[in-house]
Amino acid sequence: MSTNGKRVYRFGSDVVDGDGSMTAILGGKGAGLAEMTSLGIPVPPGFTLTTDVCRLFLDQGVLPSGVSAEVERTIHWLEAQSGKRLGDAQDPLLVSVRSGAPVSMPGMMDTVLNIGLNDDTLPALAARSGSEIFALDSYKRLLQMFGSIVLDVPKSVFEAAMEGVTGVKHFTNADAKANPDIASSSARMREVIAAFQQVILQHTGKPFPQDPRVQVTMAIEAVFHSWHTPRARSYRQIHDISESTGTAVTVQTMVFGNHGPDSGTGVGFTRNPSTGERAVFGEYLADAQGEDIVAGTATPIPLAALAGQMPDVSAELMQVAARLEAYFRDVQDFEFTVEKGRLFLLQTRSAQRSAIAAVKIAFDLAEEGIISRDEAIRRIRPSSLADILTPQFDRVALANPPLTSGLAASPGAAVGQIALTAGQAVAMKAQGKAVILITTETTADDIDGMNAAVGFLTARGGATSHAAVVARGMGKSCITGAHEICINAKARTVQVGATTLQEGDWLSIDGGTGEVFAGRAPLRPPNAECAELAQLMGWARERMPFRVRANADTPADALAAMAQGATGIGLCRTEHMFFAAERLSHVQRMIVADTIEERIAALDVLLPMQQSDFEDLFRTMSPSPVTIRLLDPPLHEFLPSTVEIEAQIACARADENWDVCKSLEAVRRKIDALTEVNPMMGHRGCRLSLTFPEILQMQVRAILQAALRVAAEGAHPSPEIMVPLVASEAEMRVLAEMIQATAKEVFAEHTATIAFRIGAMIELPRAAICAAQIASHVSFISFGTNDLTQMTFGFSRDDSASYISSYLEQGLLKTDPFVTIDREGVGKLMEMAIASVRAVDRSIKIGVCGEHAGDPESIAFFQTLGVDYISCSPSRLRVAQLAAAQSSPVCAAAPAFEVSAHSRVIPTQVAVSSRSRAWASHVPLARQPLF
Amino acid sequence: MSTNGKRVYRFGSDVVDGDGSMTAILGGKGAGLAEMTSLGIPVPPGFTLTTDVCRLFLDQGVLPSGVSAEVERTIHWLEAQSGKRLGDAQDPLLVSVRSGAPVSMPGMMDTVLNIGLNDDTLPALAARSGSEIFALDSYKRLLQMFGSIVLDVPKSVFEAAMEGVTGVKHFTNADAKANPDIASSSARMREVIAAFQQVILQHTGKPFPQDPRVQVTMAIEAVFHSWHTPRARSYRQIHDISESTGTAVTVQTMVFGNHGPDSGTGVGFTRNPSTGERAVFGEYLADAQGEDIVAGTATPIPLAALAGQMPDVSAELMQVAARLEAYFRDVQDFEFTVEKGRLFLLQTRSAQRSAIAAVKIAFDLAEEGIISRDEAIRRIRPSSLADILTPQFDRVALANPPLTSGLAASPGAAVGQIALTAGQAVAMKAQGKAVILITTETTADDIDGMNAAVGFLTARGGATSHAAVVARGMGKSCITGAHEICINAKARTVQVGATTLQEGDWLSIDGGTGEVFAGRAPLRPPNAECAELAQLMGWARERMPFRVRANADTPADALAAMAQGATGIGLCRTEHMFFAAERLSHVQRMIVADTIEERIAALDVLLPMQQSDFEDLFRTMSPSPVTIRLLDPPLHEFLPSTVEIEAQIACARADENWDVCKSLEAVRRKIDALTEVNPMMGHRGCRLSLTFPEILQMQVRAILQAALRVAAEGAHPSPEIMVPLVASEAEMRVLAEMIQATAKEVFAEHTATIAFRIGAMIELPRAAICAAQIASHVSFISFGTNDLTQMTFGFSRDDSASYISSYLEQGLLKTDPFVTIDREGVGKLMEMAIASVRAVDRSIKIGVCGEHAGDPESIAFFQTLGVDYISCSPSRLRVAQLAAAQSSPVCAAAPAFEVSAHSRVIPTQVAVSSRSRAWASHVPLARQPLF
Repeated sequence: MSTNGKRVYRFGSDVVDGDGSMTAILGGKGAGLAEMTSLGIPVPPGFTLTTDVCRLFLDQGVLPSGVSAEVERTIHWLEAQSGKRLGDAQDPLLVSVRSGAPVSMPGMMDTVLNIGLNDDTLPALAARSGSEIFALDSYKRLLQMFGSIVLDVPKSVFEAAMEGVTGVKHFTNADAKANPDIASSSARMREVIAAFQQVILQHTGKPFPQDPRVQVTMAIEAVFHSWHTPRARSYRQIHDISESTGTAVTVQTMVFGNHGPDSGTGVGFTRNPSTGERAVFGEYLADAQGEDIVAGTATPIPLAALAGQMPDVSAELMQVAARLEAYFRDVQDFEFTVEKGRLFLLQTRSAQRSAIAAVKIAFDLAEEGIISRDEAIRRIRPSSLADILTPQFDRVALANPPLTSGLAASPGAAVGQIALTAGQAVAMKAQGKAVILITTETTADDIDGMNAAVGFLTARGGATSHAAVVARGMGKSCITGAHEICINAKARTVQVGATTLQEGDWLSIDGGTGEVFAGRAPLRPPNAECAELAQLMGWARERMPFRVRANADTPADALAAMAQGATGIGLCRTEHMFFAAERLSHVQRMIVADTIEERIAALDVLLPMQQSDFEDLFRTMSPSPVTIRLLDPPLHEFLPSTVEIEAQIACARADENWDVCKSLEAVRRKIDALTEVNPMMGHRGCRLSLTFPEILQMQVRAILQAALRVAAEGAHPSPEIMVPLVASEAEMRVLAEMIQATAKEVFAEHTATIAFRIGAMIELPRAAICAAQIASHVSFISFGTNDLTQMTFGFSRDDSASYISSYLEQGLLKTDPFVTIDREGVGKLMEMAIASVRAVDRSIKIGVCGEHAGDPESIAFFQTLGVDYISCSPSRLRVAQLAAAQSSPVCAAAPAFEVSAHSRVIPTQVAVSSRSRAWASHVPLARQPLF
Repeated sequence: MSTNGKRVYRFGSDVVDGDGSMTAILGGKGAGLAEMTSLGIPVPPGFTLTTDVCRLFLDQGVLPSGVSAEVERTIHWLEAQSGKRLGDAQDPLLVSVRSGAPVSMPGMMDTVLNIGLNDDTLPALAARSGSEIFALDSYKRLLQMFGSIVLDVPKSVFEAAMEGVTGVKHFTNADAKANPDIASSSARMREVIAAFQQVILQHTGKPFPQDPRVQVTMAIEAVFHSWHTPRARSYRQIHDISESTGTAVTVQTMVFGNHGPDSGTGVGFTRNPSTGERAVFGEYLADAQGEDIVAGTATPIPLAALAGQMPDVSAELMQVAARLEAYFRDVQDFEFTVEKGRLFLLQTRSAQRSAIAAVKIAFDLAEEGIISRDEAIRRIRPSSLADILTPQFDRVALANPPLTSGLAASPGAAVGQIALTAGQAVAMKAQGKAVILITTETTADDIDGMNAAVGFLTARGGATSHAAVVARGMGKSCITGAHEICINAKARTVQVGATTLQEGDWLSIDGGTGEVFAGRAPLRPPNAECAELAQLMGWARERMPFRVRANADTPADALAAMAQGATGIGLCRTEHMFFAAERLSHVQRMIVADTIEERIAALDVLLPMQQSDFEDLFRTMSPSPVTIRLLDPPLHEFLPSTVEIEAQIACARADENWDVCKSLEAVRRKIDALTEVNPMMGHRGCRLSLTFPEILQMQVRAILQAALRVAAEGAHPSPEIMVPLVASEAEMRVLAEMIQATAKEVFAEHTATIAFRIGAMIELPRAAICAAQIASHVSFISFGTNDLTQMTFGFSRDDSASYISSYLEQGLLKTDPFVTIDREGVGKLMEMAIASVRAVDRSIKIGVCGEHAGDPESIAFFQTLGVDYISCSPSRLRVAQLAAAQSSPVCAAAPAFEVSAHSRVIPTQVAVSSRSRAWASHVPLARQPLF
């Protein structure tokens, strides 16, 4: 990182020591200024002390030997550049001292302006600027900034002193204009200055240092120190920024935008950061300094209007903007000052932008030939698509802070009236209401209520709990694990801290952030029909290194998935078909059957229903493959809860309906018998098929009969039968035999055959370890990464939200392993399994159908494993397709930034400064760095 | 397996083709007869057709070409041996045709006697034997055996025919003596013979084959066919015997024990199979054939009394017995016949024996110098020790069949009165009653009730469910997963099929077999103080390749473990200390605490209690190591159930005790909050330490303060702190730091230090995968194989009993993976983990502390992994020590049988024949082959 021990890098008209690639040692700001200067863009000259100096200073407590002398020499050079001299009583050089870390930490570290002012140079500034009050204000600001930042005098002390003199706590240049009665009195400003100097003397025991060189040194040291302030530390912790890099410091000649009507200040973007529109976008305020725009007391004009007022400056600015964008090959966010008609650029960096703008800009840049299509694809953060494809809250219009929060389980904002049970949700939906379903957790039999709701909020559960998985499948907003929520079922209220919500109250939830708001928050609709996105997705799909299928249980899901380019269905969960109202009673009859005959009778009723579901799916998907998973959940999920059945029994008793009572009691006994302590590790998955072969036989029959019928219609169904929760080769061998035997029967009865595949879900650690043996009985395997993660960690996906959030806070986990695949543990098992399977059979098809198949970071990992396909929720399809394309070798090889002949690179991974935040605040910006 | 294509092996006075090592091709019987003949022991001559012939015959449906000719030639040789000729009307040769598989399948396959009799040879037999009725009876038996076995005529048809003539269905030689009115009439016997011949003609369309050579060939083929009878198949399936070996057939000259007073038949053991006493043991019946002893209509004399009646025969028999034992180097079970004063041995094999006899015999043989001590150790099946060390039912005296059965979870028989709750068990115990506790399943807070009971019976749960683990820890009888049991808590009854048991009824359970008996079954006390066992165990302990520790939670457990040579405590579960009545309220106060201060206040009360427990343990075990596991179970286990708390709230309401009511409601809310869907994968193990560091700090403090105090007394405590349920390196790193920090505090406060170790339990698949990284923060790791098995298979140990038993029945699992470690899956993870740990650190100590540490087969596997220690329940200590010794290279190298100069070996792995079963039926025989 260190370059020949050089510790001070200059940028000026005659020499530029650094360049844009040197962010590690010059910080983002220093490197950008060097690069702009090299490009011939007007930048006030200055120099940057490296991050090496910072680290040494923080280690040793003093500036490394020689640095002061080097700074002194460089100040001489700077004086020569500007023709002004530091401390000169006629034409003093004034400088700013600013921090600039390798990774931007907007507003987190300190800046001192107007250094070089003192009692001697003040009159010269007044004389040369033609404004005594401006000079006095600048001095006052220096005293205040230097006092608080360098000398550690509390800000409140300055405010009190200010108030003592002027009656107000703050007093800026803009204030001065707005309140000429205060501002007009130079005498009163001198009183403030005297008061500030007194404050410094009292608090530090020493007067304000009049020597400008001492001011510079002290300011540099203070900026270095600011690396260790608690707020900077906590910012780095939150944003996962290394503690060890340190910050650079840039010392730059001051230019003043407040030198009269031919001066001013502005900020701009080379394209619109909200919409992506191709036009310079920003604001300009005449006779003002940058911070005055933020203060908002004066009204700036749009940059578009600048041409009318200052045509030359405007033309130059447009040229500079075009050059910056062309050079950095991305939209830039820049700051500038005009001093007496002369334009100076003070900063440039890749602009933060809204998700939709990112898509449009990437597409446009590719179409304009500035970047390649591969690079355009790399520019879109896959997870940001949720901001485009789902409704979002208008953050600016949001009045109140969130009531509480939970895990962001399925993105999108939703507003509705509270329902506390699935039944109530259905009833309210029937009345035409939008419903938010709030429950402790959901189970499979809440599915109707979930269908009726616009969003779900649960007190328990993690990122792959039932509610989360179903929500993503349905593309609905969902928050899980909102621990502060306490549901009082009797009172039909929800307690959140001190707030009590009634069933029927309005509530707003943001499944992308996990925030819960009381009342009706303002909504923006999704931009799902964005044409640029559609084209970009087309490019992405051409580049995917493996196929992306969708999880779909219904023809409607399947249609939606096909429309978005899914290459098949990778997971159809048959149990969801069992919960429909007209079927559940037969399912229950099948479960409580005492004899095999009774069970088969119930299954005979279900067979045509399942078959008809499969026919619809095959028709929709023909000729793409449809993977159907055999029944997976424990049977008790299909029965009422103990509480419900007790209530039904009580009713029957009250009615003296003894026959009903008796059969209900049989059901209750069955419920008792089926209840499990740890249902996730219980009697489920292929264990059901092995203990109740009739269920498997019915399902296989339904699948194959459906395929035969659809084939007879002229379509080309491609059924794949997938066995869940396999633990051993013996299970898979016996089940494959059972499936083949049933197929033989069906084909004989219909005197017709159809090709089908048998596959195993690898979702238990033992299955991963024994994958090669299991795979010898099937033609495909598919990793169920949800369950594999559960078992490998011993983390129940229903219960782990509480300690996982604590682990994330403590840094014990980097990411929730139910969201992003754990490469070290679960990933290792997958790697072993795939290696062992490929070693014996290269033709076997390998897929992933857990929720991780919709997570970009996990998808990048799956690419390295060499899977053949992944299958995700329909709502995640485009995210997965984009991530898959990005993981492809061709896209991965594309530069994120052009590497020019000069090998000059500037990072786009910069966060918004407080200023550009204000600019873009009417659109939700991507919450994460772009790349 | 085939030897030069030779298919017929002779044994006679002039030639013996085979030897005792050839069980694979000659079967156990054929090889044993060849070996005895070689030794010069009198054996009627004969020959054996190999198992190769059987396999070819079963494949092709006909005898391989040339075999018939070879049999014909060998019959000529046999005729020369005996001086008799097959079919000769003067002096006919009669032979038996018997099956003899490589692995004994007693009673499962067929035997035909008296072949060679026909209408022509009958008079000769009558003349030479001097008894027409004997000859007629022999012919009748041939017709019946040949008809049913060779010609497939149903036995019932012969019985009907017999009844038509004699009025009885069966009629044996012994019957003839007992019923002289039937037997005396040769005419009536001839009627039976005529009737049998008619039956054969009617059923087969052909007369009974008169040609003795045809009889021999057909009998041989029928015996080969009998390999495939359903009962033989199912026997092999049950006993895990290969289907493909086939059976050999031995054709042997008949000798008759029923030739008058100087003839007879007997069975014997070279030592007493019940007690191991060194004296020939058996019975003799004069003028009789072997089966007459079984029939029991005549009373045999003890072999000891034979000397008085036939001194020469007796002396020869004693000599033969001594030679057999010396040669085969094991106690033999032999059959013999005396024909006119001449002794013939018909069979010998290693004798089945009771567990206590096995111990005494092995010890005696070693002391006598016949076998080595290594070999003596190998001779004892470790699991048979349970029959010595725990009470057993007197099987002979058991009147009724079992009421139901479940999993044999902890061996030993127990008789007591039924209690249905832990509280009731305690109350009944207080009244001096012996109690059998029956529950659906047990949890940690049933511990007092379990302590009060003599045995437990649960409707749910597997081999490592809570009840099973606690029972083995306490050395009490336990049956789990007895599905047929249905508890009616309201009525306080237990329904088992049609039987209803009341609380207080007597019940008997056999935890070694899983059988449940109504009423009070007769008990035999344990033989725990057997001196030979103590000596053998001493030899075993000298040979263990790794250390064997005990799991112990109390000083009493620790004392018992020390007495049996435990080298330390490998697992002390601290939560068991939390359940004591005077502590639980503080534990609950700690759990429901709203603030950290409240929690610490509760922990401060618990600290001295825990410390005092640890002091006692350290004092008892000094200087051996004591591994203390930090708190493991989810906290809700310490709180009352929802039902209990609701009842308490209702009481408080009724009393209008509003303060109590309020605090109870707070507890109920906490219970709700802590309830988990899958507690096994929930907030437990080290997750508790990471979310509630105060608990860890209290426990570490208690451990170290206890160690310091005991050290100050002059003892040498060796504390090891073990962290449960570690999933990642990050967890272990942080926890090791927390433990070290607490240690530093304690040592500073006491101005004293003590050495201690930190270890990690490896019980999650992820921990096994990342073992090397985890191990870098500790000095020992210990595999918790119960949880590792659960997570690797996704089998909940509480819920899996139902499908595991179905899997075992279907052959999908060979053994319950909670009983015997699954080498392919769980074992593979252990192997990977150990290899990765040893690769980076050879000094780290590696142990196993799951229930598998008490299972001999698993222990043999752990030896191959190179573990440093295992730790098992105190009641399994001797089993584990013996299994460990057997797994050692030195014992494994010892021959199970002497390999003599002739390299002649005979298997001892033979099961009891129906005859020797009858002999030994008054002692429970080991249920499994010995080796």
